[in-house]
Amino acid sequence: MRCEVLAIGTELLLGQIVDTNGAWIGEQLAEAGVDSYEHRIIGDNQDRIVAALRDLLERADAVLVCGGLGPTQDDLTRDAIAELMGVPLVRQHELVGQIESMFRTRDRAMPENNLRQADVPDGGEAIPNPIGTAPGLLCPVGDKVVYAVPGVPYEMQLMVQEHVLPDLRRRGGDTATIVSRSLKTWGTSESALAETIAHRVDAQTNPTIAFLARGIEGLVVRITAKAATKKEATELVDAEEGVLRDILGDLVFAVDDETMEQAVLNRLLKRGWTLGVAESLTGGLIGARIVDAPGASDVFKGSIASYATDVKRSVLGVTAPSVVTVEAAEQMAEGARRVLGADVGIAVTGVAGPTEQDGVPVGTVFFGLALPGVPTETATARLPGDRVRVRQFSTITLLNLLRQRLDALPE
Amino acid sequence: MRCEVLAIGTELLLGQIVDTNGAWIGEQLAEAGVDSYEHRIIGDNQDRIVAALRDLLERADAVLVCGGLGPTQDDLTRDAIAELMGVPLVRQHELVGQIESMFRTRDRAMPENNLRQADVPDGGEAIPNPIGTAPGLLCPVGDKVVYAVPGVPYEMQLMVQEHVLPDLRRRGGDTATIVSRSLKTWGTSESALAETIAHRVDAQTNPTIAFLARGIEGLVVRITAKAATKKEATELVDAEEGVLRDILGDLVFAVDDETMEQAVLNRLLKRGWTLGVAESLTGGLIGARIVDAPGASDVFKGSIASYATDVKRSVLGVTAPSVVTVEAAEQMAEGARRVLGADVGIAVTGVAGPTEQDGVPVGTVFFGLALPGVPTETATARLPGDRVRVRQFSTITLLNLLRQRLDALPE
Repeated sequence: MRCEVLAIGTELLLGQIVDTNGAWIGEQLAEAGVDSYEHRIIGDNQDRIVAALRDLLERADAVLVCGGLGPTQDDLTRDAIAELMGVPLVRQHELVGQIESMFRTRDRAMPENNLRQADVPDGGEAIPNPIGTAPGLLCPVGDKVVYAVPGVPYEMQLMVQEHVLPDLRRRGGDTATIVSRSLKTWGTSESALAETIAHRVDAQTNPTIAFLARGIEGLVVRITAKAATKKEATELVDAEEGVLRDILGDLVFAVDDETMEQAVLNRLLKRGWTLGVAESLTGGLIGARIVDAPGASDVFKGSIASYATDVKRSVLGVTAPSVVTVEAAEQMAEGARRVLGADVGIAVTGVAGPTEQDGVPVGTVFFGLALPGVPTETATARLPGDRVRVRQFSTITLLNLLRQRLDALPE
Repeated sequence: MRCEVLAIGTELLLGQIVDTNGAWIGEQLAEAGVDSYEHRIIGDNQDRIVAALRDLLERADAVLVCGGLGPTQDDLTRDAIAELMGVPLVRQHELVGQIESMFRTRDRAMPENNLRQADVPDGGEAIPNPIGTAPGLLCPVGDKVVYAVPGVPYEMQLMVQEHVLPDLRRRGGDTATIVSRSLKTWGTSESALAETIAHRVDAQTNPTIAFLARGIEGLVVRITAKAATKKEATELVDAEEGVLRDILGDLVFAVDDETMEQAVLNRLLKRGWTLGVAESLTGGLIGARIVDAPGASDVFKGSIASYATDVKRSVLGVTAPSVVTVEAAEQMAEGARRVLGADVGIAVTGVAGPTEQDGVPVGTVFFGLALPGVPTETATARLPGDRVRVRQFSTITLLNLLRQRLDALPE
């Protein structure tokens, strides 16, 4: 099977938006064993969209069109596919009902325009959109197929995973099952990690092992196995995971979609401990990440982002002369624990930049961890990057310190 | 002049790297008054690169190839362009010397492979690369032209700005300049916004008006004008901005790169007021967004993410029986102002989901705004989406309420 990707949007050509959908889709197609030789971006012009579809379908089995399904006059994907197929658009009453009810739920009036989103090329079918108003399209063109999904990443991803990929694999007659597992690591460099497990990577053809650098999600070691059944593929992955975990030790913080914050919450939940956070340079980012994880309400008491020095003193009781020191981090962690009435208090303070503070250079960050029954601990790190990256790295580093600390405590 | 963009790299197709070069180049071309109707990504395959070049050159005056100029066997851009031109590659001794000296300067041994980077298709010329080893290429193909630049963003940008764009402009004999401006709006739906200004969109050919949906950055109305000089183009944009602002009123929260949080900070800075935040369902997200904006430290005192009910009571002094009510939002805003010692206190509480709370349905959010000299105000909204989206929308809605409130106060 070969499926090309066609993104629609003049704003992409003009560089007003960076197309990240193509990379995501490329990764999914590769994982599903579907070839993709070409990605194209075309503006909001029906003639050019039709010409591109025609050209791509000449060599490929399928084209996945991304974008141009909105309600405005600029949104021409539906019309272009109908023209390609040589059929009219047919308004589907069921979709009209869904779109109307979506607006009703949100208590908003539905502009007439939105009904265009209920139009489907005759002979095609709609792909349901449970989280937005624009349905996707699945349109046979001879023995080939054109899929259309919205450009909104969230909606696109859901449709690709639940409808496009299964349909592609069915068409390809691919009966092999692919099972993938990602071991997420934090705390080492890509080259050091690669060296550690090079002998496994070289030895393997099934499962294969790949590295992905994922920024604040860390370095991911991905194990992918192909077998006749899901059970067999899973067994291959399980065995390799065991070998890799013996090598990687506590660098592995989570598996697959589990995030660092989820890993921390799960450990706290198991002990029945609550968590309070005191932040400075991160401004609230740590709390914001924690509440994104399911189950946060059973653990998370809150976070005090004490950005100004006087707030650190008045709310958290910091007395250290400089607020960018290990002493301040220690007092903040204890303050968070006390003020928020939590079992565990963690804290971060430091210099995000752009300039140094109290003689402490940019990127220097101090962490505090106040756990029950043990003395409060501190750590210092020198983090790379600009303000935004220093904040993100501070967040993930603090959570990782807590994860490792919890794992080291007796059960 | 019309110049298409062709990015080369299997790693781009596989999603291992997101192509950000295309967006940057698109913006530069638009600003230089050069049309670009298509961007393509192709893998490291000579036949497919040649076919894509041929196809693109059929309709365009120029193609800018990005990537595939490295020293390895995978790097096929030079060979593909030579094949397209029907000429051999010629090793240029001057380039050999430059590449050798580049390695000498860095104290590194030069692998023999690197000399491939001194090969230029006969009849073409090298574009100098002052910061890397791979020179670019400028290759006439009949009365058209193919440029090749490295995929490394910094090297690419330098070559495009100093060589490719000037050459394109010279060839086009066209001095037209494009000026674009984005009016960022919050508080209405894409289709409602489209209907409001449909008569302007329809009436315009220069400037043109486009809509962009940017998620929590809101809906953007983009005005783009083309004229002989930058001054004339700017005047056209200015005039249209005036007309659109009269229609859109206070939906417009910022222009171009200004974010909502920056818009709020600028207004507070002007009044010399500090800001304190009390959050609940957002967990710290509001504070985290604010500290990303330059100048935050002059305004932002901190944020108290009181996720647990008892923290709302003990830290912020909330006495309302239910913490998902307008009363609670009001008391939280006043608590933030008092506890953080800020001039302005803002707050949000509500139900992010997945289940209702105290009989209040998911997506219901309550806002409080405590400003100096006026009674504390509240607002309620019903927001769409899952937990993550409800949080993001809550954040931006609260900041927008404060922006509108500040604009409505006497100066």
